[in-house]
Amino acid sequence: MTDAAAASPTLAAHHVHFFDEAAFLDTDRPGFRRRIIDGTNLQLWFWRITGGSTGSVLHKHDGNEQIGIVVRGALDFRIGDPSSAERSVLRPGDIYLAPVGVWHGDSVFLGDDEYGECWILDVFAPPRTDIG
Amino acid sequence: MTDAAAASPTLAAHHVHFFDEAAFLDTDRPGFRRRIIDGTNLQLWFWRITGGSTGSVLHKHDGNEQIGIVVRGALDFRIGDPSSAERSVLRPGDIYLAPVGVWHGDSVFLGDDEYGECWILDVFAPPRTDIG
Repeated sequence: MTDAAAASPTLAAHHVHFFDEAAFLDTDRPGFRRRIIDGTNLQLWFWRITGGSTGSVLHKHDGNEQIGIVVRGALDFRIGDPSSAERSVLRPGDIYLAPVGVWHGDSVFLGDDEYGECWILDVFAPPRTDIG
Repeated sequence: MTDAAAASPTLAAHHVHFFDEAAFLDTDRPGFRRRIIDGTNLQLWFWRITGGSTGSVLHKHDGNEQIGIVVRGALDFRIGDPSSAERSVLRPGDIYLAPVGVWHGDSVFLGDDEYGECWILDVFAPPRTDIG
């Protein structure tokens, strides 16, 4: 059980949203707030990221499939072969699917007009055990 | 491999969005268009549903964990114990998590101002084998 589940078992079991600001915890990366909810076969990582933040160098997950869903703002990143993948900009409603072992990252997070933040939901299957 | 993967291997492998209207196929439920993308550990069901549609009676999945993410419009539904669960309205950015065996549905789908549609992404882990 992680932060949100401890804070509100009902929400964790049923429905959750990005607007529960108190459920978001600071991480060791300035500007990156996160809420993690554990499922059984999947794990939800909600991000509220200050617009203009960079980070998330190109990386891959060798044991987890991942999807990322942009909810607010935009994600300017690369996905695929590191030597050839061009930059893509994903906006609200856009989703990326990163199969196991596929590189992604080199990201710039663009804030929305209302919060000045980029909101992204990452879903990992199976749940990650290396939460950093 | 399902419809979207066949239509665009690049999109299926990397990033996808709700705006690829041609990738959505009619289903046997009038007003419900769907795009399915298969991952390995998870499966994405994109829905574009005409506002005002009803359906999705209370049901549960005994082999799959599910999340639902509202992207446009709203989902007015119930989740939890069928005898006591009250109605909830989820709006863009709201997510529900339905663990294996948890009842959900009895849904009314409300259209957004721009398309008159409700856009929902359902994620199943593991992928469903009973696609109807």
